[in-house]
Amino acid sequence: MEPMTHEPSKTPSASAVVSRHLLMPQHANPRGTAFGGTIMAWMDTVAGMAAERHCGRDVVTVGIDSLAFKQPIRIGDQVVLKASVNYVSRTSMEVGVQVTRENPHTGEKCVATTAHLTFVALDEEGCPVPAPSLTPETADEKRRYAHALQRVRQRKERLKAETQAHND
Amino acid sequence: MEPMTHEPSKTPSASAVVSRHLLMPQHANPRGTAFGGTIMAWMDTVAGMAAERHCGRDVVTVGIDSLAFKQPIRIGDQVVLKASVNYVSRTSMEVGVQVTRENPHTGEKCVATTAHLTFVALDEEGCPVPAPSLTPETADEKRRYAHALQRVRQRKERLKAETQAHND
Amino acid sequence: MEPMTHEPSKTPSASAVVSRHLLMPQHANPRGTAFGGTIMAWMDTVAGMAAERHCGRDVVTVGIDSLAFKQPIRIGDQVVLKASVNYVSRTSMEVGVQVTRENPHTGEKCVATTAHLTFVALDEEGCPVPAPSLTPETADEKRRYAHALQRVRQRKERLKAETQAHND
Amino acid sequence: MEPMTHEPSKTPSASAVVSRHLLMPQHANPRGTAFGGTIMAWMDTVAGMAAERHCGRDVVTVGIDSLAFKQPIRIGDQVVLKASVNYVSRTSMEVGVQVTRENPHTGEKCVATTAHLTFVALDEEGCPVPAPSLTPETADEKRRYAHALQRVRQRKERLKAETQAHND
Amino acid sequence: MEPMTHEPSKTPSASAVVSRHLLMPQHANPRGTAFGGTIMAWMDTVAGMAAERHCGRDVVTVGIDSLAFKQPIRIGDQVVLKASVNYVSRTSMEVGVQVTRENPHTGEKCVATTAHLTFVALDEEGCPVPAPSLTPETADEKRRYAHALQRVRQRKERLKAETQAHND
Amino acid sequence: MEPMTHEPSKTPSASAVVSRHLLMPQHANPRGTAFGGTIMAWMDTVAGMAAERHCGRDVVTVGIDSLAFKQPIRIGDQVVLKASVNYVSRTSMEVGVQVTRENPHTGEKCVATTAHLTFVALDEEGCPVPAPSLTPETADEKRRYAHALQRVRQRKERLKAETQAHND
Repeated sequence: MEPMTHEPSKTPSASAVVSRHLLMPQHANPRGTAFGGTIMAWMDTVAGMAAERHCGRDVVTVGIDSLAFKQPIRIGDQVVLKASVNYVSRTSMEVGVQVTRENPHTGEKCVATTAHLTFVALDEEGCPVPAPSLTPETADEKRRYAHALQRVRQRKERLKAETQAHND
Repeated sequence: MEPMTHEPSKTPSASAVVSRHLLMPQHANPRGTAFGGTIMAWMDTVAGMAAERHCGRDVVTVGIDSLAFKQPIRIGDQVVLKASVNYVSRTSMEVGVQVTRENPHTGEKCVATTAHLTFVALDEEGCPVPAPSLTPETADEKRRYAHALQRVRQRKERLKAETQAHND
Repeated sequence: MEPMTHEPSKTPSASAVVSRHLLMPQHANPRGTAFGGTIMAWMDTVAGMAAERHCGRDVVTVGIDSLAFKQPIRIGDQVVLKASVNYVSRTSMEVGVQVTRENPHTGEKCVATTAHLTFVALDEEGCPVPAPSLTPETADEKRRYAHALQRVRQRKERLKAETQAHND
Repeated sequence: MEPMTHEPSKTPSASAVVSRHLLMPQHANPRGTAFGGTIMAWMDTVAGMAAERHCGRDVVTVGIDSLAFKQPIRIGDQVVLKASVNYVSRTSMEVGVQVTRENPHTGEKCVATTAHLTFVALDEEGCPVPAPSLTPETADEKRRYAHALQRVRQRKERLKAETQAHND
Repeated sequence: MEPMTHEPSKTPSASAVVSRHLLMPQHANPRGTAFGGTIMAWMDTVAGMAAERHCGRDVVTVGIDSLAFKQPIRIGDQVVLKASVNYVSRTSMEVGVQVTRENPHTGEKCVATTAHLTFVALDEEGCPVPAPSLTPETADEKRRYAHALQRVRQRKERLKAETQAHND
Repeated sequence: MEPMTHEPSKTPSASAVVSRHLLMPQHANPRGTAFGGTIMAWMDTVAGMAAERHCGRDVVTVGIDSLAFKQPIRIGDQVVLKASVNYVSRTSMEVGVQVTRENPHTGEKCVATTAHLTFVALDEEGCPVPAPSLTPETADEKRRYAHALQRVRQRKERLKAETQAHND
């Protein structure tokens, strides 16, 4: 059996990242609001950068859980993406991403999109490899850790139920 | 209260779409496999085209449910995306997308990624508007309809539980 | 002399491909209609994918014959590209591409562009190599094969005439 | 009947354009040579700029005649595109494009691709409108004018033959 | 004479921004290091976002002063861009940008590029309009303000000398 | 000490390049004028091509001096970029770039942007290597050489002054 990594545990804030983009005409549909696909691609990149910083290795996206587009983002808006690792279970890391739109003229800000993405750490041959464990420190980090743990369990149960249904 | 649409019901196959892309170097990481963000953007576009064909209106992505990257896609692979409307509830349409990678040299094919995306139909002012209802015909369409209905219910329960937790 | 390939003959439908794109603002000029160059690039990709599926090898575009833009494509239109191998002569494959624009709101469809592209199959060193022969089956496939054969002959005659003119 | 334009005739050199691109990794396939689609898009843009300069109006691509990829272009090559109007017949302008690849390390140059593209001049409503007539001056310009005139006639004959064949 | 703005003065930290990008193959030359043009475009965007946040208006880049590429950035590096307004003189704002490359595997970080960009605030008609004044607070902000003031004076002297030389 | 190159001296015109782009919607902000970052990226590419032609080697951008955006460029404008080597000092080459915007409908032309970029020639290992010396021939080339020499000296003095200031 593949051994657990012996690298020291890390905090979520040690690998958290923030990025800011300007929504330009080529990111938007003819109504002037962002394409879902553009925002998803930005979220995947920023979440992947947080996961890479946590494990110090190449990573690969394995899934997205409940991405919700809550508010439209318009051409000219500044788009702030924050990503931090919520939970780690051996080779896989759940990263939470929050996307805030900011109107630079009015100063108005609101959360536009949120999602949880899961990444796997890879070794030099591209095979899954254990990631350092995660030590949440602040109350916020602990809450996110607990919620992620719940999601991981629910996902497993859903998968089991779906497999069961297939076999019936 | 906003009335139900009086447009005739449609079948999933009436709006189903297929697209095919070539995975080029600019879609891949240095290990030669597709970026998650690129595939997500393609999935969003193809799913949105199916939703638009179903309702005959502009649509906007409101969420993604359980996107899973099952197999890597490599530079040179042909990528086949199939999207069809699974379920409609008034203004929102759930679209299933299946991504198959195909090696054009060996002929090898396998399902690489799947996801369910939800879209809302918009009127000329960009406000949500009822979409035509969906009439699944084949056994496969009926199974997908039933599963989507289950997912919609589970999503509502999860949302209720999360709101409850927030209020506690 | 390089031998003919011994791979079994294939039908046009075995390698035919279809793709669908959404015409976005970045694909269009300020009048809101598609750039010729964007559509050409999409046609080259889809035709190359059909050629690659026919020969199971890398291919390279060697020419385009009589590409005609018949109808403009507008922002928001869905663009359906169909490509199939019309004719094969040893190392070169003629692929026909038909581009249909589809307005997802009105359901209106019309052929916007057509072209014939020629590809050559390449071996691992990038040298031309024989492609499997083509066996047209349906009446439509047989008509396209006959027309392509005529074009190939006319191209050779034109080349001969041009060379003759140069030498005069 | 729409009158001929009264704008003064122009020479080919008055509107001729030249452009130079660097072939970067994102323009190439995994073998390191240019995608046909990338080169086609660059050719369309440069030819359109020459046509626009000739007529002083918006233009639209209506067709391409016998594009030939003669030599591969490699990553790192400089790509020189030259376009000039060969022939004008009322609303349509035939533009010749020659693509030269240049290796900046060895200084080696060779013609990689050639094509003839046809554009139509548009008025403010997007309707075809007469373009200024063309007055070839140099021997080279006169030869290109004569060859283009021949191509225009052959195209008309081919179209007539194809229509005839359809009606038989 | 156009009046000074009556908007309250702002600190540099109120409008400072940070962004993070992943250097992907399409941003790099065949040696695997970032194209200067890609980094410049990212610097312009991030600096423009800081300027826009400072003045609450559209802005336009009017110049760049002494951009220096100090260290190469490689494919796979994370690229952190920090921008803050250094100095404001009526309608123009000087923004300093620092680009740090970060190797996510080794954790190694170093300053790769720095530059000073100047932006002008625009009103609704696109005409220059006064920007809020700048109040540097920290020692670092005061030092940057003083250096920027020096650069602005040297630029004016150089311009005067160049004009003088032209008139001689 | 690394020896001077023994390659023969070259004139500025031997490596000068010109390129022409069409300003499309995706290159512009919502007001319809070019993004600074787009123009910078084009300037870097064209200047790098001139430097590469001068030294016959790979080059890397090391800095930009006093880039000035003088006139806005609008969607639909043709953008002409001219680059030529102004000055060479062992491994580094200063390249001047002039960007002219041209309205193809009115024929109006004006200089929109100018800048001086510095490149270093690289050997196969990516290390700086001497470039051929430069022999200005025309009066214009000699004037540009003299001005560049002045800028190089001023840059050195400024660097010295800045270092001095740091040490005080």
